[in-house]
Amino acid sequence: MKINRNYFNLQDSYLFRTIAQRVNAYKAAHPDAEIIRLGIGDVTRPLAPAIVDAMSNAVREMGDAATFRGYDDGGVGYDFLRDAIAAYYKSRGVTIDADEIIVSDGAKSDVGNILDIFGGGATVVVPDPVYPVYVDTNIMAGSKIIYVNGNEANGFLPPPDVSENADIVYICSPNNPTGAVFTREALKAWVDWALRVGAVILFDAAYEAFISDASLPRSIYEIDGARRCAIEICSFSKLAGFTGVRCGYTIVPREIVSADGKALFDLWKRRQTTKFNGVSYITQRGAEAALGESGLAQCRENIAYYRENARIIGAALTKLGIRYFGGDNAPYIWLRCPDGLGSWDYFDYLLNEKNIVSTPGEGFGKNGEGFLRLTAFGSRENTEKAAERLLR
Amino acid sequence: MKINRNYFNLQDSYLFRTIAQRVNAYKAAHPDAEIIRLGIGDVTRPLAPAIVDAMSNAVREMGDAATFRGYDDGGVGYDFLRDAIAAYYKSRGVTIDADEIIVSDGAKSDVGNILDIFGGGATVVVPDPVYPVYVDTNIMAGSKIIYVNGNEANGFLPPPDVSENADIVYICSPNNPTGAVFTREALKAWVDWALRVGAVILFDAAYEAFISDASLPRSIYEIDGARRCAIEICSFSKLAGFTGVRCGYTIVPREIVSADGKALFDLWKRRQTTKFNGVSYITQRGAEAALGESGLAQCRENIAYYRENARIIGAALTKLGIRYFGGDNAPYIWLRCPDGLGSWDYFDYLLNEKNIVSTPGEGFGKNGEGFLRLTAFGSRENTEKAAERLLR
Repeated sequence: MKINRNYFNLQDSYLFRTIAQRVNAYKAAHPDAEIIRLGIGDVTRPLAPAIVDAMSNAVREMGDAATFRGYDDGGVGYDFLRDAIAAYYKSRGVTIDADEIIVSDGAKSDVGNILDIFGGGATVVVPDPVYPVYVDTNIMAGSKIIYVNGNEANGFLPPPDVSENADIVYICSPNNPTGAVFTREALKAWVDWALRVGAVILFDAAYEAFISDASLPRSIYEIDGARRCAIEICSFSKLAGFTGVRCGYTIVPREIVSADGKALFDLWKRRQTTKFNGVSYITQRGAEAALGESGLAQCRENIAYYRENARIIGAALTKLGIRYFGGDNAPYIWLRCPDGLGSWDYFDYLLNEKNIVSTPGEGFGKNGEGFLRLTAFGSRENTEKAAERLLR
Repeated sequence: MKINRNYFNLQDSYLFRTIAQRVNAYKAAHPDAEIIRLGIGDVTRPLAPAIVDAMSNAVREMGDAATFRGYDDGGVGYDFLRDAIAAYYKSRGVTIDADEIIVSDGAKSDVGNILDIFGGGATVVVPDPVYPVYVDTNIMAGSKIIYVNGNEANGFLPPPDVSENADIVYICSPNNPTGAVFTREALKAWVDWALRVGAVILFDAAYEAFISDASLPRSIYEIDGARRCAIEICSFSKLAGFTGVRCGYTIVPREIVSADGKALFDLWKRRQTTKFNGVSYITQRGAEAALGESGLAQCRENIAYYRENARIIGAALTKLGIRYFGGDNAPYIWLRCPDGLGSWDYFDYLLNEKNIVSTPGEGFGKNGEGFLRLTAFGSRENTEKAAERLLR
């Protein structure tokens, strides 16, 4: 039996499972502790009323022979949703053809699955600190990974200081875990580099809805040349609170073509129509509603709510004299652990002394050592309580 | 830019897209034609009331802060659904641990994605005729494909006449496209072969709910030794009409271990928790309801409805003297094209003269030449009309 030996090179356990184990151990020992979870980037606000209405209606349609729907024909997403996504981009000044969009069950799936079209053994540029999925999926594929360093000096926005050619580079902006957001100029440097070396940028825009500063790009396609080198992966998880509903999409502009003249869109479409069978009709109606006028307004209220949470956490950290990044145009706060503590030490301190669950920075790579991530996705009550506990 | 050149070895277009193109061309030329679709295996009955109730309730829960759910913790499926699946097997006399089940968005995804854990370049045994996804996913992975022949002589149930060792074998029973169902003895031969050569059986049980003959196995785990060599992939698509809802699951028994002593379950779980983020909570509640007492009874009514469709088509074919397989314990009818016609010729004849959409057998492999697949998933009215047209 042949098996994929690249899996043996993976770290033993996925970061968030390790955290869960520590939290569960603490809970077992302290069953009465009131633990506040600011670790995983999971939303807590309920689905917006417009989304609930649309999904309830879609469930009813599925229960009626006259309106029942089977397979999403083609498996790339219904036109109603792809058109709504294109219109969402249009409203932000970015022109995307609905036919360049393939709807999926989430950005994490697309980030993992898109490596299929590049084949194993690619050379891949990954920033450090980094969302672990970028690294693990590439280890599984036997990629050669080149890290670029994010640090306090560059504001955790590493420039393309890459001496080798590469096939792929991952850029996540607003960044998970650091909350840093690339400026147009900084993104342009990556686009220019990608075009020069023939690399593809995988641009993870999952947190775009958190950008309030109009001067910051929310899509890579705001940058000249990006249509020839950049794939954008986005999600309804953070825009519309779909972490438990599952919907995302990937945009592959027609202009991205391999040396053999193959359009990457066609390869990705082939991958998805062969190994995927589309997203629930009910979910797609919910996603469409999230992009409708009332849905979007309701989603933005939730985002404003989380943004206020970030402000509350940030204010507490400032009072404590703890330096942090992010939190203004992102749901993540990336803080330097005080008193020279290591990531896991401060994680344990917060868990044991403050009963706050965080994410240790070194789980995101070596440049995360000495840092910690907090999320703004908690409830207001818990966020305020956490801020009080930090200050206590 | 490195790309996966294995994709260049794929046939130009996925079978069902080719069919769609021919049908669309016919429709464009004959806008008034009343076309009956018995091609794609897509269900037409609405979701059962118990499922609609459960999903409506789950949508309401997601709209309320007190009951909202984010990520499916761990991404492998909620315990309530994994327990319900284990109980569903238990009711059929098969003991599966809920912890051996990973819930997904459908069998097609799992069939495609599971190759990840074997790595590229495996040696794979595939029956012919075959569900095209088995072949295409292996071409993408650069597998070496060995075909075993299904034909009229062996009732389209090829035995393990394989001279080489192999890493993987695909078995689909009840079979898509032929509707043939393996007996226990015939399956036992494959299990024995797999154990002897160290291969893994990927057993596609998507159509198990259509088996009415109690002597036929509905799970590979009814066969001695299968827990050491067989992965079972199943789906709610045909059991509960979930083609547009998307839910499936894969069972990897703990006993399947690589030569290095790695449990395949752990590799698959790692794959799924890294490149997938779980199934919609709403969908999982629907799937749970499908396996509940009233849900299962309602789903079985739908299956009885489709089975009666199969009987109607079969009766018409018998009257016409057309030989066919399947239809009794499967939703597919696999017929020999009359008058020595080729698959696409008879497909075109049925489309142009009877306005019936079918699936040409040669789309499923060389042994499908001269055969055609009809599905029982149409409405009763359309199925009766199709039978009348065939007899006219």
